[in-house]
Amino acid sequence: MSTAPQTLPSRANDAAYRERARRVIPNGMYGHLSTARLGDDYPQFFARGEGARVWDVDGREFIDLMCTFGPILLGHAHHEVDAAYAATAARGDVLNGPGPEMVELAERLVDQVAHADWVMFAKNGTDATTLGVIVARAQTGHRKVLVARGSYHGIAAWSARPEAAGMTPEDHANTVFFEYNDLASLEAAVAQAGEEDIAAIVCTPHRHDVFRDQEDVDPAFARGVRATCDRVGAAIVLDDVRCGLRIDPRGSWERVGVRPDLSAWSKSLANGYPLAALMGAEPFREAAGRITATGSFWLAGAPFAAALTTLRVLDESDGIETMRASGRRLQEGLAAQAAGHGLQLSVTGPPQMPLLLFADDPEFEKTRAWAQACARHGVYLHPIHNWFLSTAHDEATIDAALERTDEALREVREALGAD
Amino acid sequence: MSTAPQTLPSRANDAAYRERARRVIPNGMYGHLSTARLGDDYPQFFARGEGARVWDVDGREFIDLMCTFGPILLGHAHHEVDAAYAATAARGDVLNGPGPEMVELAERLVDQVAHADWVMFAKNGTDATTLGVIVARAQTGHRKVLVARGSYHGIAAWSARPEAAGMTPEDHANTVFFEYNDLASLEAAVAQAGEEDIAAIVCTPHRHDVFRDQEDVDPAFARGVRATCDRVGAAIVLDDVRCGLRIDPRGSWERVGVRPDLSAWSKSLANGYPLAALMGAEPFREAAGRITATGSFWLAGAPFAAALTTLRVLDESDGIETMRASGRRLQEGLAAQAAGHGLQLSVTGPPQMPLLLFADDPEFEKTRAWAQACARHGVYLHPIHNWFLSTAHDEATIDAALERTDEALREVREALGAD
Repeated sequence: MSTAPQTLPSRANDAAYRERARRVIPNGMYGHLSTARLGDDYPQFFARGEGARVWDVDGREFIDLMCTFGPILLGHAHHEVDAAYAATAARGDVLNGPGPEMVELAERLVDQVAHADWVMFAKNGTDATTLGVIVARAQTGHRKVLVARGSYHGIAAWSARPEAAGMTPEDHANTVFFEYNDLASLEAAVAQAGEEDIAAIVCTPHRHDVFRDQEDVDPAFARGVRATCDRVGAAIVLDDVRCGLRIDPRGSWERVGVRPDLSAWSKSLANGYPLAALMGAEPFREAAGRITATGSFWLAGAPFAAALTTLRVLDESDGIETMRASGRRLQEGLAAQAAGHGLQLSVTGPPQMPLLLFADDPEFEKTRAWAQACARHGVYLHPIHNWFLSTAHDEATIDAALERTDEALREVREALGAD
Repeated sequence: MSTAPQTLPSRANDAAYRERARRVIPNGMYGHLSTARLGDDYPQFFARGEGARVWDVDGREFIDLMCTFGPILLGHAHHEVDAAYAATAARGDVLNGPGPEMVELAERLVDQVAHADWVMFAKNGTDATTLGVIVARAQTGHRKVLVARGSYHGIAAWSARPEAAGMTPEDHANTVFFEYNDLASLEAAVAQAGEEDIAAIVCTPHRHDVFRDQEDVDPAFARGVRATCDRVGAAIVLDDVRCGLRIDPRGSWERVGVRPDLSAWSKSLANGYPLAALMGAEPFREAAGRITATGSFWLAGAPFAAALTTLRVLDESDGIETMRASGRRLQEGLAAQAAGHGLQLSVTGPPQMPLLLFADDPEFEKTRAWAQACARHGVYLHPIHNWFLSTAHDEATIDAALERTDEALREVREALGAD
């Protein structure tokens, strides 16, 4: 089977849309889907997706290893989810109150997620993490929020990078940093914040920060976070926005036996339709009922219907195991290819959310060159942000992707002059 | 034609869903669509909507004067908008980058909105107002944000009510209040904030605060806001989330001849599908390109397609004029009914966004009793929050609503023992 690059007749459509976008959108694009720092081999504009594949506006096909950075869990354009969405939308999506689907979805999530006794829905991952912090503050009467340095929890004031444009010192006055998986640094943060004023410790299920190997949570660290919260009267807010429904349907810390008080979910809940959820344990229900939490589209019915179908399909198809097996095949294949080419690199993360970084690559030039080569060969992945698999990534898809990644590795090795 | 209440065989379905919801949702519901403070004659759960009407889960029909608090602009379940949405969703809604619709919509909005040279899209109204504040801070290097006391701009830290549960003093450390339409109070706020540290003045197009008569903007006040911003190097952020596309397609302050630097839109942009937008003038483009602004679903294509159709249909049908004429008919009818019943009340707001409050009603008991009577008679409106009309509200709909409101007024007059 050929591993040669696809014939690329033209990038004209993407170039034309980029040019038009530059006039009416700052920098021509913004946010995590901007290709500005990915390089010119990445398309900016897409025409369609199906299953594990996407096509750009010039008709180039890509095996998609990003799944839109997480929302796509069952594959793009999943007919059953789309049908559930459309049927509900046709009845009227946003009414003067929710439809029955909201209750059904809340019941299903409370049944499914181990620590959850109640649910509140929103739209953005940022909404869910931020509502978690507000509920924690309302419940505890404390102000400080402890977060791991480098972890991403959204763009709200408390979680934004202090140095980001437009932030004020007051925005992060109550945010205190620790190092993930480092209980000594957590204790130092507790001391810095003051034991009597800590509302929450916010954690991702494992360390999936950009620009570094992924790192699993140390169970002793998770237990330490639990013990610390219990000691100082604070809440664990587990930020399951990225991992939720890919690691464990009951919540991503069930496998280490630590239950959060509050957990934030979004991304994959409705296979791409906009939905977020804050889930909480009983002791936080009263405070959750006191906070101001509202949004124009938060109770729309169609995303609830899509989520109910997503959860059912994931469960009936044993989808997490499918993703895990495919991810393992991908990770092992990549590691074997690297060895074959004599390249030093690391493949990390849970198999469902892999990442490949080159060793001895402080400026990420090698990994960027390789990712660009992958894009040229028709695999869409990210150089410095973890990838995402879906249940549509079957063995054949992974094997096809591996053929293309191998060619990309070969090109990088040649360019680097290795061996 | 009968003005008697509809036969109400049962509220059993609504009651059953409420009971189930209480177990899995704090207080059984949250946010502006909770009926907790509306009274038991309001249903909490809805089954469907069509045009200007909604039906609850027990089959009760309501003429809908709330339009889901704004999102529904062309009527519920608008087939053309829904078809545009579904067609795009079927191609894949959220891909690894946006589709052409994003550029087309940005171009259309920049053409249409007078002050806008660029657009950024998000999901919540809160996203749009908050991105406006962040861009203003990034551009000016200043921290303080001036907002009118009582105006609602969303649930982000800077805009939340300082006394709301879970807020910290630091959240509103940079928020300074003035009185809407009062230039002297604005000057006092400027002095309090410090002339050299003001990033933005955030304003609604007119005063549409809850619990009070709506009040049009004084053009001299709007010009004063403009002059103040120019003097201190701050931005006007016009919060057009509620008014946008109902007052003037070019932006809601065009009619007073004052252009904002930044404007926030959401609600009606896509006739109910989740979308928000920050629009800005050229001098703020560079700062907008520097801020961190991203969300998992912000570049989804289907809401862009729905918005393009919404804007086209609104324009081709002269929809704003339709809403204005229907609203006038409603407002004049209500005023005439009040006079006929000898009731003292005020009907305020632009016709497209009316509100009725009773005079001499400090606890809003009369207006609540009337609103509940309207609900019993099959008109869904709100006692203390402005209502919204859509282009589906034709003369016949308004006349049917007026028959029901008249009966409700009669009941309230009898209950009050007026005359």
